[in-house]
Amino acid sequence: MSLTHFDSAGQAHMVDVSAKAETTREATAEGCVVMRAETLALAQGGAAKGDVLGVARLAGIMGAKRTSDLIPLCHPLPISKVSLDLTPDTDLPGIRVTATVRTTGRTGVEMEALTAVSTACLTIYDMLKAAEKSMQIEGIRLVRKSGGKSGDYEAAT
Amino acid sequence: MSLTHFDSAGQAHMVDVSAKAETTREATAEGCVVMRAETLALAQGGAAKGDVLGVARLAGIMGAKRTSDLIPLCHPLPISKVSLDLTPDTDLPGIRVTATVRTTGRTGVEMEALTAVSTACLTIYDMLKAAEKSMQIEGIRLVRKSGGKSGDYEAAT
Amino acid sequence: MSLTHFDSAGQAHMVDVSAKAETTREATAEGCVVMRAETLALAQGGAAKGDVLGVARLAGIMGAKRTSDLIPLCHPLPISKVSLDLTPDTDLPGIRVTATVRTTGRTGVEMEALTAVSTACLTIYDMLKAAEKSMQIEGIRLVRKSGGKSGDYEAAT
Amino acid sequence: MSLTHFDSAGQAHMVDVSAKAETTREATAEGCVVMRAETLALAQGGAAKGDVLGVARLAGIMGAKRTSDLIPLCHPLPISKVSLDLTPDTDLPGIRVTATVRTTGRTGVEMEALTAVSTACLTIYDMLKAAEKSMQIEGIRLVRKSGGKSGDYEAAT
Amino acid sequence: MSLTHFDSAGQAHMVDVSAKAETTREATAEGCVVMRAETLALAQGGAAKGDVLGVARLAGIMGAKRTSDLIPLCHPLPISKVSLDLTPDTDLPGIRVTATVRTTGRTGVEMEALTAVSTACLTIYDMLKAAEKSMQIEGIRLVRKSGGKSGDYEAAT
Amino acid sequence: MSLTHFDSAGQAHMVDVSAKAETTREATAEGCVVMRAETLALAQGGAAKGDVLGVARLAGIMGAKRTSDLIPLCHPLPISKVSLDLTPDTDLPGIRVTATVRTTGRTGVEMEALTAVSTACLTIYDMLKAAEKSMQIEGIRLVRKSGGKSGDYEAAT
Repeated sequence: MSLTHFDSAGQAHMVDVSAKAETTREATAEGCVVMRAETLALAQGGAAKGDVLGVARLAGIMGAKRTSDLIPLCHPLPISKVSLDLTPDTDLPGIRVTATVRTTGRTGVEMEALTAVSTACLTIYDMLKAAEKSMQIEGIRLVRKSGGKSGDYEAAT
Repeated sequence: MSLTHFDSAGQAHMVDVSAKAETTREATAEGCVVMRAETLALAQGGAAKGDVLGVARLAGIMGAKRTSDLIPLCHPLPISKVSLDLTPDTDLPGIRVTATVRTTGRTGVEMEALTAVSTACLTIYDMLKAAEKSMQIEGIRLVRKSGGKSGDYEAAT
Repeated sequence: MSLTHFDSAGQAHMVDVSAKAETTREATAEGCVVMRAETLALAQGGAAKGDVLGVARLAGIMGAKRTSDLIPLCHPLPISKVSLDLTPDTDLPGIRVTATVRTTGRTGVEMEALTAVSTACLTIYDMLKAAEKSMQIEGIRLVRKSGGKSGDYEAAT
Repeated sequence: MSLTHFDSAGQAHMVDVSAKAETTREATAEGCVVMRAETLALAQGGAAKGDVLGVARLAGIMGAKRTSDLIPLCHPLPISKVSLDLTPDTDLPGIRVTATVRTTGRTGVEMEALTAVSTACLTIYDMLKAAEKSMQIEGIRLVRKSGGKSGDYEAAT
Repeated sequence: MSLTHFDSAGQAHMVDVSAKAETTREATAEGCVVMRAETLALAQGGAAKGDVLGVARLAGIMGAKRTSDLIPLCHPLPISKVSLDLTPDTDLPGIRVTATVRTTGRTGVEMEALTAVSTACLTIYDMLKAAEKSMQIEGIRLVRKSGGKSGDYEAAT
Repeated sequence: MSLTHFDSAGQAHMVDVSAKAETTREATAEGCVVMRAETLALAQGGAAKGDVLGVARLAGIMGAKRTSDLIPLCHPLPISKVSLDLTPDTDLPGIRVTATVRTTGRTGVEMEALTAVSTACLTIYDMLKAAEKSMQIEGIRLVRKSGGKSGDYEAAT
C-alpha cells in the first residue's frame, strides 16, 4: 500500500480531488483532558468564576476553520457546520470533548473534527494550567464519518 | 483558588504580563499517535515512500508559531527556538513526538510546546488515515518547563 | 425567539447550512469616520501627500476576506466580489465608506460587507491619528441584502 | 502637516520605530451596538439562551491580536494585556463595549484597542442579526492612551 | 485597454466572478534559485544533512493555500490539488521549481501556482543563506494554464 | 559545512537565537517584473486608470509581516520598519522593486525584505495578467544587510 499524500517518487503533494463529487460529508471526533478532581471542580465553578467550557468550545469552532492552515496537505474546505460538546466527567476525572463538522465538498472533514477537538483540549489546558500542570490530553480519535467514496466509518467502542 | 484567565467577575481576559521580567523560558511537551503495526511500517517506508516524520515535524514547528492565533487567551510571543523529535516505537506501536520551545519573553511557552506536539500528531494522522482510521492521539502533556516566576516543573514519570 | 448561533442548551455553534441552496447573495454596508475639517483636508491631500482612501479601500477588501477568521461563528465563504467606495464629505466632516460583497454560497455576506467597512474605517483612523485622535467611527450598518431564504432587506433611510 | 504613514513622495510605508524606546503603553477604546429593546432582551437571555456577551468578548480579545494583519501600516506588537467590558444599556438600548490593551513596545496600542472594540461589535451584530438587521455600530473612538513620546490623551466627554 | 482589477474610476476592487461558470482550471508556473556550485552541493547533502527540497516543497504547497491572503485582489478559491517539483540543476547551477495547482472554481489559479513557486524559492534561500547570500531567484513565470473563459495559455519556450 | 536550519541528524528545526543580542538589523532586497512596453504603459496609466504601484507597495508591506507564516523555519520578528520603492523602467521594460526592512531583534530580516519584494512582484503580475501572461519575475536578491553577528553584506553589482 502507498500513502495518498505522497506521489510515486515519495514527494509530498496535495492530492487531486477535482474529480471527486461535491457531496455532504460529516465527521465526529472525540478526546478528553484528564485532570485532578480539584482541577475539574475549578473548571466547573460556573459563570461567576469563568466559563472554561464556553471559551474552549469557541476555540474549537475557530480551530476547525484553521485546519487547512495547520495541516500541510489538507485541502481548504467550505465548512457548513461545527458543533462541540464539552462534558465534565467526575469519573475520569476530566472533561470530555466531542466535535462534529459537516461540509458539502470534495474531501472529508475528519481532520477538521480532530483539529476542533485538539484546539478545545489545548484551550482547556491553557485555562487550567495555573492550577495543574500535570493534566493530559488523551484519546483523540475519529468516532465516525459519513459521505465520500471511502464510505462510512464507525469506531469500535 | 481562582483562574488567572478570568477576572473577579468571571470574565475572560488576556492577563496583564507587562510587569513580568523578560527572561529566557523553555518548555518541553510530548505525546504520541498509537496505530497498528502495519500502519507504523507504512510511516517508516523511507524517503522513497514519503517522509511522514519530516512533514509532521515541519507542521509542528509552524504550529508552534500559530499558538496565539489558536488559543484565545494566549499572549503572542517572539519564539526563539522550536525543535521536534519524532520517534517510531514498535512497542507502542506508534510514533512518539516531543517538542521543545524557547523564548525570551514575559510568559512561558508551555502552550507553544503543546501546540507543536498536537499539530505534529494531527499531521501524522492526516498522512496515514487512508491506511487506518482508528489511530489515536494519546498522552499529550507537559514534560518540563523552566524560567519565569512560577518556577521549574518536571513531570512525574 | 431563540438565537440561531446557539443550540437549545444555549451552547454556541456554527449553524448547519449544508441543506441551504448555493445561490447568489449580495450585501451592502456603510459607515463613516467623523473628523475635524482640517483632518479631512489632510486626507484629501492627493497622491503627492499620500493616498489615504486608496490604502483604506485595499484594507477593506482584504478585511472582507478575513471575516470568518475574525467572527467566531461565521462560515467561510468563497467571496466572488468586493468593492468599496470611500467619499470625503465636508458636511460631516469626514469620510463615508460603503462596501458591497457578493458570493455564490450557502449563507449571506452581511458580515463580510460590515467587516470590510469596519476595516476600512479603522485604517482611515490609523493613517490620520497622528493629526487627530478624536475621530469617531459612526453608523456602521447594513444598507441592503439580497438572496437567500430570509429574503431581501433594505434599510430605512 | 504631513501624514506619518506616507513618505515625502506620498508613498505608503510602515514608519521606522526602531529608535523609539520600548516602554509600557496602554490604550482604551469604546463603542456600542444600538438595537431595539426586544433585541437587547434576547442578548440578555442568560447562559441557557446563549452567552452573546461572552462570545463577543472573546472575539474582541482575539481580534486585538490580529490588528497588524488587518491594518496595513500597523506594526506587529507583543500585546501584554487585553480586556473587554460589554455592558447592556437599556437606555440606549444596546450594548456598550470598552477595550483596554497594554504592551511593552515601541508604538502605541490605540489600533489594537479600536480593533478589539470593532471585532466585538461585529460579533454582537452577527449573533443577533437573525432577530434584527437594523442594528448600528456607533461611537467607536479612543477614550484614552498613555505612554510613548506623543504623551497621554484623554477624550473629551 | 483597461485593467480588470480597477473600476472605471481607477479604484481597486475584487472583480465580480459570480456569473462565471464553476469549471476545472489548472495552472503551472516555474522559477529557479541560482546559486554557486558549492551551495547546490550543500542542498543535495541528502537526508542525513537535511532535506532542503522537502522543506521547500511543503512551504510551496502551504504558500499556495495562502495566495488570497497575500495578493490583495485575489479571490479565495477551494484549491483541489497542489504539487511541486524541485530539481537540482548543476548547469544552472541551482534548483528549478515547478508548481501545478488545480481548482474547480470561478477564477483561474495562475496566482496560486506563482505563489507556490515564489514561496518554495524563498524557503530555499532561507535554508541556504548561511552558506551564500548572493543566491538569486530568477525566471518566475506562468508556463501554462487551462480552463476558464480566457482560454488556454502556453508560454513560448 | 552544515546547514543551520537542520540539526546534526539532518532534522529541520527553528534554530535557537535566544543567546543572540537584540540589536538593530536592516536588510534591503530587490527584484523586478519584466513585461512588454505596452503592458508597462498600462501600469503607468495614473490614478484615473488604477494605481498598480500603490497596490503592489501595500501588498509588499503586508507580505513582510507574513514572512514567518510563510517560511517554515523563520523566526517571528517585531518588524520596526518596512518601505518599498517601485520604479517603472522603460529600458527593462518593466517595474523594479526594492524593499527595506528593519527590526530590533535577535535575527536578521533578509527573509522579510525578500518576501516583501516577492509579494509586490506577484501582485504586479496579478494586476497586469489580463493584459500579458508572459511577464516574468527576475533577479530577486539581497542587496545589503547590516547588524547581527554575521556582519554586514553588500551585493556585488
